[in-house]
Amino acid sequence: MEIFFANPGDIKDTHITLDDFEKKHILQSLKKNSGDTILITDGKGSLYQTVIESKKPDLVLKIEKCEYHTPPEQQIGLGIGFIRPSRLEFALEKGTELGISKFYIFRSQFSNYYSDNTDRYEKILRQAMKQSLQYYLPELIVYHSLDEFIQATYEYNHKIAAVSSEFPALLQFLNRHQCNEQNRSILISIGPEGGFSDREIQLLTETSFLPISLGKNRLRAETAAITAISAIQLYIQQQKEVNIGI
Amino acid sequence: MEIFFANPGDIKDTHITLDDFEKKHILQSLKKNSGDTILITDGKGSLYQTVIESKKPDLVLKIEKCEYHTPPEQQIGLGIGFIRPSRLEFALEKGTELGISKFYIFRSQFSNYYSDNTDRYEKILRQAMKQSLQYYLPELIVYHSLDEFIQATYEYNHKIAAVSSEFPALLQFLNRHQCNEQNRSILISIGPEGGFSDREIQLLTETSFLPISLGKNRLRAETAAITAISAIQLYIQQQKEVNIGI
Repeated sequence: MEIFFANPGDIKDTHITLDDFEKKHILQSLKKNSGDTILITDGKGSLYQTVIESKKPDLVLKIEKCEYHTPPEQQIGLGIGFIRPSRLEFALEKGTELGISKFYIFRSQFSNYYSDNTDRYEKILRQAMKQSLQYYLPELIVYHSLDEFIQATYEYNHKIAAVSSEFPALLQFLNRHQCNEQNRSILISIGPEGGFSDREIQLLTETSFLPISLGKNRLRAETAAITAISAIQLYIQQQKEVNIGI
Repeated sequence: MEIFFANPGDIKDTHITLDDFEKKHILQSLKKNSGDTILITDGKGSLYQTVIESKKPDLVLKIEKCEYHTPPEQQIGLGIGFIRPSRLEFALEKGTELGISKFYIFRSQFSNYYSDNTDRYEKILRQAMKQSLQYYLPELIVYHSLDEFIQATYEYNHKIAAVSSEFPALLQFLNRHQCNEQNRSILISIGPEGGFSDREIQLLTETSFLPISLGKNRLRAETAAITAISAIQLYIQQQKEVNIGI
């Protein structure tokens, strides 16, 4: 099974037009032809079953069916300091696969890199959403400072920051704070390579981020991000199974 | 803090000679000089504090102190089907950071790639060990088939295989099987892109691999590997804290 993406603006009542990137993939790589079935998502929960109506000049698809998928009950956000692009892109790809709904990238004290060219990042999110068969495209916002990022995070029920091994383990935190309740949201924040500075840790804890540990090994920033997201998702999955008595 | 690697054969009673790769890093990138302190591990638990005695023709270090670190109480192995090299290398790097002690790479039914040139893999393990400040270099073994891999895994107390979302969640499994007991070992097995075939799943379950789920999202093989290792490590960390009453 393979799904493709269409910008919501290119989806009309009965037809969908695809952009060049998706068109190339469908026609050149997969060699699809008129009449073939194509699945499309708008990245906002809708999945369209369509057939190819015409290939030139634009790839036009005729909508046959549409189903709407509700968003995941639990919203998980990831805040991460700027790191080397290849490593940041990796965190975005893996974070999307693992179900992050919102990415916040911020410049913090130890960040050596910075770029607000979000086009490349958006492409990675889109590809990872399609690859992992999800119907929601994560949001991505870039902040010039940690303070700006913190100010944008009031919406979360739980805010945690991976700080150092002196703090309680992430799974302890999740168990204690009953983060499995439905419709609750969790934000996990990871510093850049080198972590958060002392001043930043103080700022985070003063603004209701709870400090946690991801174990004693020194992890690269992107590894820390994936580790934390993995644990949160597997914890939520486990709690669901406990609740329904598997 | 930065540590470097020396092949055990290059470590004599009082002196250590470094290979070209480490020499270049120390002299050219870090511009270290005679008399500077260098920390060295042999990848077998020893950490040497040394000073640079001479830089030419070989970089020779004089040992000042040596301390031995015992291996982690819990050995975690990762078996993974061959996937595209960049993705496999990523799994090796992240797996090492997260404390894998033994990697098994095997060719299985849906593997599209294969290479038994382990030099490149070994380099990645070495770099990741140093970067994450560990003193044990993971082992790495390549197998031509899943059957060969399975035959080599008798040493583990717990063997699990990530199969599909119909099976219990990984954390459920860990809680049920008390995988936190000291000196127990866990092996997690992940299929290549596309997963294990039905025949392979049957073979794994017949040879005491317990099937588990990593959630409902379709994950790439390397993401599945990192997710599983992260959860196991955070679970072990949490259980330790519970045991010592943090």
